[in-house]
Amino acid sequence: DAPFTLIAGPCQLESLDHARMMAEKVLEAAAPTGTNVIFKSSFDKANRSSVDAARGMGIDHGLEVLATIGQEFGCPVITDVHDIEQVNRAAQAVDVLQIPAFLSRQTDLLLAAGETGKAINVKKGQFLAPWDMQHVAAKIASTGNENIMLCERGASFGYNMLVSDMRSLPIMAQTGYPVVFDATHSVQLPGGQGTSSGGQREFVAPLARAAVAVGTGAVFIETHQDPDNAPCDGPNMVAVDKLGGVLAELSAIDKLVKGL
Amino acid sequence: DAPFTLIAGPCQLESLDHARMMAEKVLEAAAPTGTNVIFKSSFDKANRSSVDAARGMGIDHGLEVLATIGQEFGCPVITDVHDIEQVNRAAQAVDVLQIPAFLSRQTDLLLAAGETGKAINVKKGQFLAPWDMQHVAAKIASTGNENIMLCERGASFGYNMLVSDMRSLPIMAQTGYPVVFDATHSVQLPGGQGTSSGGQREFVAPLARAAVAVGTGAVFIETHQDPDNAPCDGPNMVAVDKLGGVLAELSAIDKLVKGL
Amino acid sequence: DAPFTLIAGPCQLESLDHARMMAEKVLEAAAPTGTNVIFKSSFDKANRSSVDAARGMGIDHGLEVLATIGQEFGCPVITDVHDIEQVNRAAQAVDVLQIPAFLSRQTDLLLAAGETGKAINVKKGQFLAPWDMQHVAAKIASTGNENIMLCERGASFGYNMLVSDMRSLPIMAQTGYPVVFDATHSVQLPGGQGTSSGGQREFVAPLARAAVAVGTGAVFIETHQDPDNAPCDGPNMVAVDKLGGVLAELSAIDKLVKGL
Amino acid sequence: DAPFTLIAGPCQLESLDHARMMAEKVLEAAAPTGTNVIFKSSFDKANRSSVDAARGMGIDHGLEVLATIGQEFGCPVITDVHDIEQVNRAAQAVDVLQIPAFLSRQTDLLLAAGETGKAINVKKGQFLAPWDMQHVAAKIASTGNENIMLCERGASFGYNMLVSDMRSLPIMAQTGYPVVFDATHSVQLPGGQGTSSGGQREFVAPLARAAVAVGTGAVFIETHQDPDNAPCDGPNMVAVDKLGGVLAELSAIDKLVKGL
Repeated sequence: DAPFTLIAGPCQLESLDHARMMAEKVLEAAAPTGTNVIFKSSFDKANRSSVDAARGMGIDHGLEVLATIGQEFGCPVITDVHDIEQVNRAAQAVDVLQIPAFLSRQTDLLLAAGETGKAINVKKGQFLAPWDMQHVAAKIASTGNENIMLCERGASFGYNMLVSDMRSLPIMAQTGYPVVFDATHSVQLPGGQGTSSGGQREFVAPLARAAVAVGTGAVFIETHQDPDNAPCDGPNMVAVDKLGGVLAELSAIDKLVKGL
Repeated sequence: DAPFTLIAGPCQLESLDHARMMAEKVLEAAAPTGTNVIFKSSFDKANRSSVDAARGMGIDHGLEVLATIGQEFGCPVITDVHDIEQVNRAAQAVDVLQIPAFLSRQTDLLLAAGETGKAINVKKGQFLAPWDMQHVAAKIASTGNENIMLCERGASFGYNMLVSDMRSLPIMAQTGYPVVFDATHSVQLPGGQGTSSGGQREFVAPLARAAVAVGTGAVFIETHQDPDNAPCDGPNMVAVDKLGGVLAELSAIDKLVKGL
Repeated sequence: DAPFTLIAGPCQLESLDHARMMAEKVLEAAAPTGTNVIFKSSFDKANRSSVDAARGMGIDHGLEVLATIGQEFGCPVITDVHDIEQVNRAAQAVDVLQIPAFLSRQTDLLLAAGETGKAINVKKGQFLAPWDMQHVAAKIASTGNENIMLCERGASFGYNMLVSDMRSLPIMAQTGYPVVFDATHSVQLPGGQGTSSGGQREFVAPLARAAVAVGTGAVFIETHQDPDNAPCDGPNMVAVDKLGGVLAELSAIDKLVKGL
Repeated sequence: DAPFTLIAGPCQLESLDHARMMAEKVLEAAAPTGTNVIFKSSFDKANRSSVDAARGMGIDHGLEVLATIGQEFGCPVITDVHDIEQVNRAAQAVDVLQIPAFLSRQTDLLLAAGETGKAINVKKGQFLAPWDMQHVAAKIASTGNENIMLCERGASFGYNMLVSDMRSLPIMAQTGYPVVFDATHSVQLPGGQGTSSGGQREFVAPLARAAVAVGTGAVFIETHQDPDNAPCDGPNMVAVDKLGGVLAELSAIDKLVKGL
């Protein structure tokens, strides 16, 4: 009976005005279906394929922008953190802290995030089995913080490709924590373009529909007004003017599945 | 607008009476949702993990039983064939010939099947990419027979496990041929019990829902009145008295997705 | 203390003269190191990626050529069989029957091969775990024929790629049967060129060295006088004039490892 | 013509006396073959499967112990670092900084390590292709530090298992940087024991032989006087009294391969 939830926004913060524009468009897209929105964007892309790729606006300005979005639009905001020092600063600006997949086993980061008392969204490492995530969650929960979300974003499948194992969603749900399906990074082709990752935008909507049909009530979709020219994850971001259509599908499947 | 289709039946033929009982139960389960049924069973399990495993009733008696089921219940029947000699005999008894996944690259078998003019359901090899299946289909189509279905049944994922890549369904659909999702063998754990394969019955329904949400209009589910004591594929067959419930879900998602 | 063994020859039979030329060159390459040679070629490529690919000279002429090579050169000959009818005919012409990887679970083929009393080389399916091969061997051994070789040729690793798991060699050796490393097909990129498979010829020698260092005393290498223009498996065949150099390395490692 | 190199030591620091004992035994094992030794141990296990697993003695005492070992035994010492703050401190105590596989894409950590001017050993992420490592190396090299080693430690292969792709070694060697084969972590079964990782100690020596036969001149092997009771990585560590035997094999293969 929980409302359907969407974590969405541009992969990388570009400016306050851009973030405002994106938040407005995402909220507009979500309104007709009553979809809950958590606005997502990153202040720092800390693990780009190449050292020359754009890193983003940095933590000082980035957290300011995210806090402003939260206040102006009255919606929760999520951002990803990469070391302990960032955790405490980000916890003052946003509502949900996200642990990147590559860092999903870093004990100190998980503990520091847990200790903020904020909600934590942990991405499942591409190198982890779904049942391994109970131990990841237990690290956070050891701080007394049970406000945890577990997020599927694809498992390594040969080189430069991920596969979305839909069994992962009910397996992780057995922990009792809400499960999120990241439809954007699941269709990433890591390193697939040499100095950057490729992606398969055309599979975002089908895989998201699959995840919701399996029973997942929260989906993560990065979006941009012009994905092909976005500073990162362009090949797998959905154009924001198509987001409403995707949500209409997901929300309808969500209602159906919850009613079954 | 095509009706939702279910390929279902017991993994292995046990007797005419058993086949009758199963066909009746499957058709009963399908009736409330107006689901199309193709009755499936095998006369020979030609590639069991162990030489000691039950092979089935053999081709002579098996084809007779299958033909009888088709006549008595007025529903199409499908069975799998393993060599050219079986192809022509089976084509006289059943409506659809199925090419097993391990044999999906055997050119002569594909050609012989195509030449019967019967509908052909080809399982995608666990070792094939979805885009490889266009070449498999082209072998059959080279006989002039375009009555082809392409069936996803899991891709090798490490040892003794398969993964269902839901991207496979739209990719294979680009061929223009109907796509089937085999929810039973996709949850097989090949060789996972030493001398036999294990399975994860609990994922049949969620994966089938996912496949239908992606847009697949046909699902393959093996079923039995007592899966735990069935002569093969017990760990991944669904109890026939639960089949109606699964179909209610799948049919509802199918209608929703087709209406989107 | 068994001599190092090489299974080698052109992927596909082209003509008697070509087979003679290749056998001569392979034996010449093997002589300096005292390497045992089993001459390998196929009369039929039964599972090409595309229906338009060259199938070969066929069983009648092919078996004649193979028998002639065996007689003229006094070396054992191996060829692959794809159905039961081929098994008995091939057993009269060659010394070793080979079961293709895709067919490594087809019980009737394994039994028929076993019943000929000939030596059998079974390729491990790309979809099998190394420990699954004991059950494959047991099918053959159930006929009373223990003259079995188990052959590693790569495991599925994502799409269109295989990986050589070197652990497979000692695991399969635990059966007590000799183990062969197929360095040619292990570097295949299945379906990697759309209508045909690609390959990585540059890794044949390094992977073969690895396998011998692990303790494998038999290697399978397809070879051709002009691989780039060979009718099949060109991208992963080694030029026959480089074969001697590869064997010098392998034989030296083999001697060293056996002496350790 | 470079001498064969071994990176070895106990997974985790236990005490100064233990480190001394281990260093002495490792150096003794290496002496007969003239193997170069870099002593390895960790002051902190920052990404254990479970929050309850032993973390180690911590950075203050740990770096002191490592510096003492370097001074007393006159051999280079390597340890792994997990965040920027650790990098600068560790650089004052050890000769080589190691970047853990999970962190192999963290740009800031790579840059900080590079800027110390120390030699850097980067483990290839289990989620990376061998050709992706050139971009990892380029991040370090962008600091002007070209003293880089690239280390294979297994690629994700299904769940809870890694596979050693021996092609990775020559592919990474194309960068011009020395390549190391980590035979200990390549046989890890990540998360394979629920709250800890399993391992396959019996494959350390065969895989290391394979890697050296491929042409890799440096091997990483964790070792302990009593692996079954070691505080971490017990299932995949080699008993130190067997290390000399393994090195005799590896060194002989190394000499042979370099002379080919």
